[in-house]
Amino acid sequence: MASYNFPETTLRSFTNNVFLKMGCSAEHAMLATDVLIRSDLRGIDSHGVARLNGYVRLWEKKRINTSPDIRIVHETPSTATIDGDSGLGLVVAPFAMKVAIEKAEKVGSGWVSVRNSNHFGIAGYHALMAVERDMIGFAMTNASPLVAPTFSVERMLGTNPMCYAFPAGKYPPVIVDMATSAAANGKLEIAQRAHKSVPGGWIQDSKGAISEDPHELKNGGSLLPLGSDRDHGSHKGFGLSATVDILSAVLSGANYGPWAPPFVAFLEPPSDPVGQGLGHFLGAMRVDGFRPVDEFKSHLDNWIERFKSARPVSGDQQVIIPGEPELIAEKERKVTGIPIVESVVNDLNELALKFGIKQLKIAP
Amino acid sequence: MASYNFPETTLRSFTNNVFLKMGCSAEHAMLATDVLIRSDLRGIDSHGVARLNGYVRLWEKKRINTSPDIRIVHETPSTATIDGDSGLGLVVAPFAMKVAIEKAEKVGSGWVSVRNSNHFGIAGYHALMAVERDMIGFAMTNASPLVAPTFSVERMLGTNPMCYAFPAGKYPPVIVDMATSAAANGKLEIAQRAHKSVPGGWIQDSKGAISEDPHELKNGGSLLPLGSDRDHGSHKGFGLSATVDILSAVLSGANYGPWAPPFVAFLEPPSDPVGQGLGHFLGAMRVDGFRPVDEFKSHLDNWIERFKSARPVSGDQQVIIPGEPELIAEKERKVTGIPIVESVVNDLNELALKFGIKQLKIAP
Repeated sequence: MASYNFPETTLRSFTNNVFLKMGCSAEHAMLATDVLIRSDLRGIDSHGVARLNGYVRLWEKKRINTSPDIRIVHETPSTATIDGDSGLGLVVAPFAMKVAIEKAEKVGSGWVSVRNSNHFGIAGYHALMAVERDMIGFAMTNASPLVAPTFSVERMLGTNPMCYAFPAGKYPPVIVDMATSAAANGKLEIAQRAHKSVPGGWIQDSKGAISEDPHELKNGGSLLPLGSDRDHGSHKGFGLSATVDILSAVLSGANYGPWAPPFVAFLEPPSDPVGQGLGHFLGAMRVDGFRPVDEFKSHLDNWIERFKSARPVSGDQQVIIPGEPELIAEKERKVTGIPIVESVVNDLNELALKFGIKQLKIAP
Repeated sequence: MASYNFPETTLRSFTNNVFLKMGCSAEHAMLATDVLIRSDLRGIDSHGVARLNGYVRLWEKKRINTSPDIRIVHETPSTATIDGDSGLGLVVAPFAMKVAIEKAEKVGSGWVSVRNSNHFGIAGYHALMAVERDMIGFAMTNASPLVAPTFSVERMLGTNPMCYAFPAGKYPPVIVDMATSAAANGKLEIAQRAHKSVPGGWIQDSKGAISEDPHELKNGGSLLPLGSDRDHGSHKGFGLSATVDILSAVLSGANYGPWAPPFVAFLEPPSDPVGQGLGHFLGAMRVDGFRPVDEFKSHLDNWIERFKSARPVSGDQQVIIPGEPELIAEKERKVTGIPIVESVVNDLNELALKFGIKQLKIAP
């Protein structure tokens, strides 16, 4: 499918206008825009402006509140529970991370479980807020149920990402930001659009047989946990996903497991909720709560150098440090612009019509 | 290989005597014994008394200090760094977890990074200490380098386990306790002893080709991260293992990556250490730092029930809740005793000769 490059600023302005038309405050619109554009810049196209229409549809269904009263409902010096008041996860999660960072500044670490929220974009955005303050950042969220636990054919869990981010010295931060399923849903969507098969071990059909057809997900199939099958540790992927679900939702009072509300507006949330909205879990630990920052950073630099120089399987492929591909994409796209596939451009321009804002122009 | 059942008390008494002969205090001997026996009870045979000889050999090489001065070297209200003074990880880690729990009691959570330690047994033991206090427990450790990062043939990381443990109400705790490699080393050892092949995706040979021969590890091969190959997310397993390594060792001042000292005494630690000993990371968060304990527990009970009733792939195999197999083993072995394979019995009885203590008797 054809794709077109747009400058970052063009997409920022467009996205900001949409959020303003949805009734977000100027501050919230700019923040939500930043989360989406940062995702596109970092090469995670599935979580950027391609999702904008999804947020609009949820708002139209009154499942997103664009003027939320986000508040702390319970706290100790190092922990808090936050009610997102059905707000955009894109603004609720940064609010929660700020609380975590403030607590870390006072007592060394801060941990915030969030209920009554919505999809929060890329986990890495939030974890990096801590890294900028010389803290270690943690970010997790539960999500629409698409993944079956080992031994089951039922969609019980989201792709439930875990993110851990660490500040380095002369190198960029180390950022582990990963779905706990074998493949992220975005990769399935790319294969679906391209009518390509996917590796065995990403999905199963409705009866639990391994399938290479990405469309099986529409026929009652499910994504598989990281590890793919029991022999290769799918029970570990399930365990990690369960951890995300419990820290994000059981701990905060959000909906967990199959009760997590779906991101797509055409699917109604379960009629028997066990909590409120989606859940997140965010954390920040001051590096100097453990050792001097410069010592930690110089050792993490050494760690990075040693792993980059690990003996390769083949001569031309070094070890990739977690976070490196996103950084390369960000550097490149800051210069060349952000490629948007034609179907997403059309989608965005329909939004422009709906809201009476300026359409994106495709350069001839 | 033949195995023999021993009552828990027999193995406790034997193990305690060995630790006493090594010069441990009565308190330390009992604690170290408890960690090993609990592992055997829970069915994790690779980390129980089968390892006792390994600890003895490290002590003989003066790499374990049996009268350590374990101390806090840096702290904030919710964080601390602990120097294990080359002690047994089996006593250093519980010391660190106690500190984490005390901090959690005061400010909601406690996080402890540990340097200058040794192998700490099963992660679940330490995390469960928090669960007993209605806290969520976290435990990680780095370990002898056996695992190659994605795209490399070099052993750079240990099987670096992650453990997350959550207190439930009427059900046993949910405990995710997993190596971040595709298979734990213990599973390789079992296949080696039985001269059986292993599933493709657990190990690679010295050139990076997938191997099903568990002995390849002795020929320069390496374990693979969870996910097994790039298509199936081995970069995620690598990322998790890196997270454990950084939190346990880069943060505390222990040896990280390929500098982690080997558990086997016949391999010398690297001559150019980047820190002291092995590293651990332990954490405790008060559940009531987020919501009332009874609310959390009743929702976790509901979570467990819902996952147990997820539609199965085949009728006779329900979803296994993380921690369930260990619990079943513990219940059974409390009654039937702990099965020890013949080679381990012989190994233990050589220790008995060495220390002049009573040998284990095999019932006829």
